[in-house]
Amino acid sequence: MKPVAVVGAGKTQFGAFPDRDLCSLAVEAGRKCLEDGHIKPSQVDAFFLGNFAGPSFTGQNHLAPYVGAALGITGVPATRFEAACASSGSAFFHAVMSVAAGIYDLVLVVGVEKMTCQTTPRVAEILASAGDLSGEVKAGATFPALFAMIARRHMHQYGTRREDLAAVAVKNHANGAKNPYAHMRKVITIEQALAGKPVADPLTVCDCSLVSDGAAAVLIAPLERASEFTSKPVVVAGIAQTSDRLPLAEKQDITTFPAVRKAAQKAYKMAGVGPEEVEFAEVHDCFTIAEIVALEDLGFVKVGEGGPYTSDGCTLPTGPKPVNASGGLKAKGHPVGATGVAQICDVVAQIRGEAGELQLARHSLGLAQNLGGSGATAVVTLLRAA
Amino acid sequence: MKPVAVVGAGKTQFGAFPDRDLCSLAVEAGRKCLEDGHIKPSQVDAFFLGNFAGPSFTGQNHLAPYVGAALGITGVPATRFEAACASSGSAFFHAVMSVAAGIYDLVLVVGVEKMTCQTTPRVAEILASAGDLSGEVKAGATFPALFAMIARRHMHQYGTRREDLAAVAVKNHANGAKNPYAHMRKVITIEQALAGKPVADPLTVCDCSLVSDGAAAVLIAPLERASEFTSKPVVVAGIAQTSDRLPLAEKQDITTFPAVRKAAQKAYKMAGVGPEEVEFAEVHDCFTIAEIVALEDLGFVKVGEGGPYTSDGCTLPTGPKPVNASGGLKAKGHPVGATGVAQICDVVAQIRGEAGELQLARHSLGLAQNLGGSGATAVVTLLRAA
Repeated sequence: MKPVAVVGAGKTQFGAFPDRDLCSLAVEAGRKCLEDGHIKPSQVDAFFLGNFAGPSFTGQNHLAPYVGAALGITGVPATRFEAACASSGSAFFHAVMSVAAGIYDLVLVVGVEKMTCQTTPRVAEILASAGDLSGEVKAGATFPALFAMIARRHMHQYGTRREDLAAVAVKNHANGAKNPYAHMRKVITIEQALAGKPVADPLTVCDCSLVSDGAAAVLIAPLERASEFTSKPVVVAGIAQTSDRLPLAEKQDITTFPAVRKAAQKAYKMAGVGPEEVEFAEVHDCFTIAEIVALEDLGFVKVGEGGPYTSDGCTLPTGPKPVNASGGLKAKGHPVGATGVAQICDVVAQIRGEAGELQLARHSLGLAQNLGGSGATAVVTLLRAA
Repeated sequence: MKPVAVVGAGKTQFGAFPDRDLCSLAVEAGRKCLEDGHIKPSQVDAFFLGNFAGPSFTGQNHLAPYVGAALGITGVPATRFEAACASSGSAFFHAVMSVAAGIYDLVLVVGVEKMTCQTTPRVAEILASAGDLSGEVKAGATFPALFAMIARRHMHQYGTRREDLAAVAVKNHANGAKNPYAHMRKVITIEQALAGKPVADPLTVCDCSLVSDGAAAVLIAPLERASEFTSKPVVVAGIAQTSDRLPLAEKQDITTFPAVRKAAQKAYKMAGVGPEEVEFAEVHDCFTIAEIVALEDLGFVKVGEGGPYTSDGCTLPTGPKPVNASGGLKAKGHPVGATGVAQICDVVAQIRGEAGELQLARHSLGLAQNLGGSGATAVVTLLRAA
């Protein structure tokens, strides 16, 4: 396995764009990325598309050659990867492994989702299909309900408070307000977060990520060739994808995601670092409780301590371990299939020192954690300056 | 890149099974394959699932960890590949490349589709989503219409006759009648084929493949380890996946699929053989005209000669170049996401000499050709005895 680098990145604004279709979003991100990596479409050896539910949201399937051709990429493998909300994390993982193993030199990875073309009930139904249809979904448990159970159990086992969840929301809203690509740029107070409209107790609307349209793209190359494409290559120091059962009911403990723990262990081992060395992270805060669980599963804090750690300000941009400086899924938005690659773009921007108003003081080793469903897929990536 | 072998195979009966769901089909094929390769689920390094439209047909998405866990596979990458009707061909391609490059040793690849749970109009709509939604589908062009245009143009350019199309159907029905796994085991005459109920002129119901439920699985390993799993390893001598634009309207010539031509060239080059050395093939006869075009794109005959070659009996099991000895998609059935891996299983069975009543006289070098949509994805594989 040879060292691999991200040598280009591009993303669209995240938001609700009635006039934009899936393809135009994906193409915008892809073109920006190709320009950033100074390459032509004809130089791409493979095109990997991360997309969760394009066929259900938009009607169009067979999306990889569809988007690839619109970018000017034909005659090479064009493949769609689906792993629920970790779809583009999975596409990125496979791209990195393929380049590391010498299968390809240049892989363009695009993540995309167009969601706002459907009504809210239909969006909830489509998202729920990432959970267990025959059990959870038939019983009416959409994702807010599943994560509400996780939150309730975390409160019961560890004394986590509603205020801790609200602290995640307040931080991520504040961060997102500074992010020009974010879907929601609105600062909220802890009182506003606590008084949010109930969705699934104890989660309110302020605990839930957004339904968004958007796309993100990265270009992967062997590190030894990186200087052909960029003066600021970002090395993939460690990466792993793992899986678990879908239903929460089949888990021994719903307050932790074994797939995330295992992926993190493998990624840390590959990078030769521990969680204490990670300087900042973009984690999968599909719900505020998910960020707290991520802090624990990634080893940033001990089990049960994610809530107080957050309320103590440790994950603020000015804290010892900044988390979701981009605003996270909560404020930046969560176009499902785009999220995994968007996290990589945000970590890459920090490492390059190009994060503008979001730029962190310590930014040489970052982590991205992408979760599929309620933990059945996990992708963890460690990125560092070359 | 190291030599790679198929060391296990398993498939379900293809058909319409009202009492079987997607997961039970995938699990049956996967278990048979693991048994055939004499390994436990815990030995699998990665689980690759090929599935086209499970979410649309069954409502369940996030299918790779869902099926993987039901097979007892967790904690490893579980990834779904979608490339329309070439979904499991694509999953197989990525599995082979991953093992060849040393990323994994043992990859289980399952292809599955559950289709008969939807009404015929809804099935047509879901299948059409593999074509260009904004152009072809909105204009009412479902796949029979697209392939009817290809057939009509092939007739116009090369003098191909309705009788040539019918000869494909007659042959594949006769072959399928001998295949215990086939969906339709019914011999038809050329007169019956010609008198079939019209679907999209010049195609009749006898020119169209079947809407089926089914699954197929193969286990991939490095050739150097093959003897641990089987006494009859089958080597992947050459393989390629390529892509093209979706709409027929953007093609220079609709009577040929450039993606198939390019994939075949790459696979032949990798294997160091030419089309004349291929002893038998399983090709993607979603419609009878597609088999005729495949004969030409794979280089078995010159452009325009696929029809007469078929009518002359050259592709019969007793002919010089047996094609679709299994019955093909036409008679064996076409559970879309299962088809690519099912073709591999059928070629492997021939090479192992385990094809029963379907066994061909010459069976040491076989080819499988899997097509996505109307040619936007193509996977071509060459397999031979170790």
